[in-house]
Amino acid sequence: MNIEMIRAAAARIHGHALRTPLLNSGFLDEIAGRRVWIKPECLQHTGSFKFRGGYSALSALDPAIRANGVIAFSSGNHAQGVALAARMHGTSAVIIMPSDAPQLKIENTRAYGAEVVLYKRGSEDRDEIGDRLSRERGLTLVKPFDEPQVIAGQGTTGLEIAEDANAMGITNADVIVCCGGGGLTSGIALALEADAPTLRVRPAEPEGFDDVARSLRSGVIESNTATSGNICDAIITPRAGDIPFPIMKRLCGPGLVINETEALGAMAQAFLRLKLVAEPGGAAALAAALYRRDEIKGDDVIVTISGGNVDPAMFARALEQL
Amino acid sequence: MNIEMIRAAAARIHGHALRTPLLNSGFLDEIAGRRVWIKPECLQHTGSFKFRGGYSALSALDPAIRANGVIAFSSGNHAQGVALAARMHGTSAVIIMPSDAPQLKIENTRAYGAEVVLYKRGSEDRDEIGDRLSRERGLTLVKPFDEPQVIAGQGTTGLEIAEDANAMGITNADVIVCCGGGGLTSGIALALEADAPTLRVRPAEPEGFDDVARSLRSGVIESNTATSGNICDAIITPRAGDIPFPIMKRLCGPGLVINETEALGAMAQAFLRLKLVAEPGGAAALAAALYRRDEIKGDDVIVTISGGNVDPAMFARALEQL
Repeated sequence: MNIEMIRAAAARIHGHALRTPLLNSGFLDEIAGRRVWIKPECLQHTGSFKFRGGYSALSALDPAIRANGVIAFSSGNHAQGVALAARMHGTSAVIIMPSDAPQLKIENTRAYGAEVVLYKRGSEDRDEIGDRLSRERGLTLVKPFDEPQVIAGQGTTGLEIAEDANAMGITNADVIVCCGGGGLTSGIALALEADAPTLRVRPAEPEGFDDVARSLRSGVIESNTATSGNICDAIITPRAGDIPFPIMKRLCGPGLVINETEALGAMAQAFLRLKLVAEPGGAAALAAALYRRDEIKGDDVIVTISGGNVDPAMFARALEQL
Repeated sequence: MNIEMIRAAAARIHGHALRTPLLNSGFLDEIAGRRVWIKPECLQHTGSFKFRGGYSALSALDPAIRANGVIAFSSGNHAQGVALAARMHGTSAVIIMPSDAPQLKIENTRAYGAEVVLYKRGSEDRDEIGDRLSRERGLTLVKPFDEPQVIAGQGTTGLEIAEDANAMGITNADVIVCCGGGGLTSGIALALEADAPTLRVRPAEPEGFDDVARSLRSGVIESNTATSGNICDAIITPRAGDIPFPIMKRLCGPGLVINETEALGAMAQAFLRLKLVAEPGGAAALAAALYRRDEIKGDDVIVTISGGNVDPAMFARALEQL
């Protein structure tokens, strides 16, 4: 896993992924006590940065192998990213999703042309289902974060952040990244190490699912006890991936931890001040920038809004914060 | 009013206004029956394209005159655009606003540093108030659309659309623009005439406020009978401006007319598929693309989402459409 793989992924996704801008708002600067820059990956195809990793992985496959189709496990954004990337490569995708995944994410994954296989969390073994389908059909597994070409794709976000930060003269900034398994966080960290080495990457996680913050403190991969029960569904991964973690350990931290009310508050501010739709997990980094200002050191803070796939009812809950 | 003024405005606003991308979503393409491209000016500073015109006008003033301050009449987006542009130029702005303007827009205009003077619609004469203040303080009036440097600023939106459309090979497209007084519509039309002459500009308006559609049919400026009573508050201008109209007559049409339910539906689709917050008037062009497909001829359609300054209650109404 290295910067050359990220640059190669950037070349492959060029013209296919959206080159997102950096946004800002004086109103948010005031709340945060410093300049806040937003990387709006909710605007990315499929509504999250996951399309970058999906497209990177699909485009890196041998065409003959790719033609057999791919398979992924995901409750949401990775599912949609892989599904659309598969369609754009003219191949098929099977996505194994928990039956309690947000309805919108299930519907969208199907609409992008994927075959969705639902399993019951707790009673059914998703790995067994996936292994069987992969063997039967010769499918290639695209892991959500513990896969170099996926991390390379997510890392293209970091190349763009570096390019814009350098153009604007931003040199002393915390770059806060919404963090589940660590694919986006580690990819951005590698990109910034190469292209904007004075910026510090810091993962943001929800309370009770702060395994990466704890892992960065202890130096070894820690796990969460709970596996559900938080509105930040996109980033409540049980533990960081084996490939992302050493990268994060070397380059990232300390972690920032936010609560559900703060995630909703950040969604409301994104609505009001940025005109962006963020999902709870996608608003974690902005929440940290706005409501954990004492834990941030930089003159500037750069945050990912990593996804916007939120049901109207949850969004209405966020608007009630205003 | 000519293309050179728009190019000069682009040079002045470069690095100050946001260079917005063109977005798309396969889901919207399906509803529209053709490819739909979105120019998201809701992401622009102050939440609407009006910042472009405000900044263009302020930056074109003689510095000695500008130092005395500017004045504008507006119930919303133009107010905020002029207020922020004035602050960025280190000068003062007086904004005359009706006392029944949305509270958020009044608060924002003040937050951008402007002095807000409220008047009672019906009982007080806003022009008299404005004239008096201008004379007393030597303020320069920045009109919302009937002003060449404002149109030049709005026209920079068209230069960017042309650049992106040319890069993507889009040659046969209707460009639908949310239209009030015609500043944005005429500015985009002049820019496209120069840089993407095969594209057709078409104004979008709400039912009952379709003065431009009627004016383009009759060949003379027509007025609306009502002056309020539509959720598309940003674009229910009484009549087109004297400078924009001849440009629109030469280059634009026919007009497209949408109803309030369609505006809300387009806001809901922008939430769901684009992760963008649109205000009702800012969603008029998208509504026309989605719900008036039989009146559109191009292989592609490009629409402005011209603003996103909507209060949470109205946004919740839009989400009920889903």
